[in-house]
Amino acid sequence: MVHDFDRKIDRRTTNALAIEGYQAYLFGADAPSEVREDLVSMWVADMQFAAPPSAIEAMAARLEHPIFGYTMNFDDALFNAFGAWCARRYDWVIRREEMELSLGVIPALFDLIDCACAPDEKVLTLTPAYGYFRRAADHHGREFVTSKLLRDGVDVRVDFADFEAKARDPKVRLFFLCHPHNPTGRIWGEDELRRMGEICLANDVLIVSDEIHCDLLRSGLRHVPIAKLFPGAKGIVTCMAASKTFNLAGMMMATIIIPDPDLRAIWRKRHYPLVSPMGLAAATGAYRGGGEWLDQLRLYLDENFSLLSRVLAERLPRARFRIPGATYLAWVDLSAYFPAEINLTRLFLDEAGVILEGGEMFIENGEGMVRLNLACPRAELKVALDRICTAVASKYTGSPEEPTDEPLAPLRLDRSVLDMA
Amino acid sequence: MVHDFDRKIDRRTTNALAIEGYQAYLFGADAPSEVREDLVSMWVADMQFAAPPSAIEAMAARLEHPIFGYTMNFDDALFNAFGAWCARRYDWVIRREEMELSLGVIPALFDLIDCACAPDEKVLTLTPAYGYFRRAADHHGREFVTSKLLRDGVDVRVDFADFEAKARDPKVRLFFLCHPHNPTGRIWGEDELRRMGEICLANDVLIVSDEIHCDLLRSGLRHVPIAKLFPGAKGIVTCMAASKTFNLAGMMMATIIIPDPDLRAIWRKRHYPLVSPMGLAAATGAYRGGGEWLDQLRLYLDENFSLLSRVLAERLPRARFRIPGATYLAWVDLSAYFPAEINLTRLFLDEAGVILEGGEMFIENGEGMVRLNLACPRAELKVALDRICTAVASKYTGSPEEPTDEPLAPLRLDRSVLDMA
Repeated sequence: MVHDFDRKIDRRTTNALAIEGYQAYLFGADAPSEVREDLVSMWVADMQFAAPPSAIEAMAARLEHPIFGYTMNFDDALFNAFGAWCARRYDWVIRREEMELSLGVIPALFDLIDCACAPDEKVLTLTPAYGYFRRAADHHGREFVTSKLLRDGVDVRVDFADFEAKARDPKVRLFFLCHPHNPTGRIWGEDELRRMGEICLANDVLIVSDEIHCDLLRSGLRHVPIAKLFPGAKGIVTCMAASKTFNLAGMMMATIIIPDPDLRAIWRKRHYPLVSPMGLAAATGAYRGGGEWLDQLRLYLDENFSLLSRVLAERLPRARFRIPGATYLAWVDLSAYFPAEINLTRLFLDEAGVILEGGEMFIENGEGMVRLNLACPRAELKVALDRICTAVASKYTGSPEEPTDEPLAPLRLDRSVLDMA
Repeated sequence: MVHDFDRKIDRRTTNALAIEGYQAYLFGADAPSEVREDLVSMWVADMQFAAPPSAIEAMAARLEHPIFGYTMNFDDALFNAFGAWCARRYDWVIRREEMELSLGVIPALFDLIDCACAPDEKVLTLTPAYGYFRRAADHHGREFVTSKLLRDGVDVRVDFADFEAKARDPKVRLFFLCHPHNPTGRIWGEDELRRMGEICLANDVLIVSDEIHCDLLRSGLRHVPIAKLFPGAKGIVTCMAASKTFNLAGMMMATIIIPDPDLRAIWRKRHYPLVSPMGLAAATGAYRGGGEWLDQLRLYLDENFSLLSRVLAERLPRARFRIPGATYLAWVDLSAYFPAEINLTRLFLDEAGVILEGGEMFIENGEGMVRLNLACPRAELKVALDRICTAVASKYTGSPEEPTDEPLAPLRLDRSVLDMA
């Protein structure tokens, strides 16, 4: 079956955060009171695409049964489907008893701090990072420690000296790893994963690996869960989600793999275990039958990234960008065009009618960057990119000349992560 | 349209807590390893009935739109429907800005402790009470203070001297009221509500009124929200839920009415705001079109209560029971048959193949009682009651004579709460 990702689907009247929620999320009390009507949404990380038919069909089938009472994940259907998915897609075998459900990765991060981190202990992450990493720590009153990624042109890498120094702090108890990394789209290499893992395990820092983007890799690449590199290690929790892979964020289904039986016991005691029967059905259907949809989606996203590359090269030559290994998020360096202090989120809303997330949304270390969500029909992407380029051109007062930097090499494919599935 | 509450619907294979979850919830580590196959479920508070067609149709309509991304309650559809419901059913008008959504009343209780109660402050409730009241306090490490209801034959009433003494403790910050009351089914009268309200408001104790059973009254009775009796009071939070009224617990939708703007601001800052688009659709459809279904349901429940009364009078004359004003839960005093220390939950599971909740499930002050969930097809109820009566007869070794007490008067209907809707 061929899936039509070019189809434009109107999300108005569906209470979509992407459409209705940007003002509060991006601007808070400073939200503009008037905005143009024809906004294009490139912000929050869900997709403008229809969910896989197998997910929708599973929900329709569940709807045939007319009782929707208190529901928990008692049977093995979802975890069997998810376990088979992990085995097939990542060559990673998880034991049934290690899997827990959560209503999302964000709630799981909140819960894991609650379960694993004492009030005087600290949470570590690499920045830039997803804003909710900090919110989760703030919510529980835990100190939030960051290690800035080093920016090496458009690449980022871990500052291992800094990271290790921070992980050695005896009060640092938990490390939020984001793998693949949001917002940069970086797939951490096996060497980097091993080094981060060894540092954390040696210092009794629990790794909570948010692998929510694990299925959204460029075609040909294969995800390597960090836990797979440390067989038997109790100190790694892995978070994956049908919500993200299959564009089912509203169905609120994430799988949390907790190998440590003691931590799992605390989780089970403190975690609210009810779920929606429709969410269960959707996630199960997606993992069972959504593989072909996902493969086609990835090809479509590959093309959207290629389009972005071409447009930037042609129209914004001072922009620095390279197609990331993962996510549908493009992390574009526009610092050559704007002073660091400018709020790019606001600028592009006002000047381009495009809702995107500027670097300031990612805690720190995102100056001059924008994150663009490319999971939209190509025609819409073209409109958005045209508006973005036009807005930059209209605001930029410097030299229009080509940058002096060498052109960027194309994405280097690491043979060790080639997708054999 | 006539709704068929006699229809027996098999809930196996739907991950229903009622069917699959009783062992862990009721017995924990002491769960019996082997039980008979033909168990009848009379425990957790959801119903063995199909949800109202308007809810299911609304979900089916939402399923026609293929995107299920991040969702929040942006538009006015649900709150308009819910507000109209409150105005029509309780003659109670709520302002739009006071309404918040939660994934259930239980999560809301947890969140409200977090929002309103400092770590050294205490939570008060009346017992017997729903076990999650205590769990919510324990989860956050707040001290849990109880005031035992006085048992006056089969009636219960508030021990106001004790209640007031406890509410006066300056560390008591929050009172979980359950109105109508679970497990007794008691509708608190306006005088009692006023007195509890005045005591709490005078002592700066926030009332969190769990009114989740507000729509499940005997036919002819009308719910009076405690907040309606204190117009303009900021110190009362009201929790209601489509989940309970329309048997949609799995769709995870409760409405929390928070009149205090300061508390609401804290809630909005700390509460995870995402919901399921299917839950939103179900709740909206139910409040819009579920009234007739509910009225028929109430008549059916009235008859189930009458049946229970007749069976008990005939076969267990020492049982003490009167039809409650609200809930589909019967709170039956079997203390004449069993010593106080016996675990009736386990006894009826083993001896009758009936899953019910003994008084020990309700924190304290439930000795000798059982709670029966009557929201099931009548044929099933008859089977369950026959088994219960047979089990009591087989275990009871005392005199089979009639009790000396006067027969109980039928439920007294207070004209002030007659349903004018």
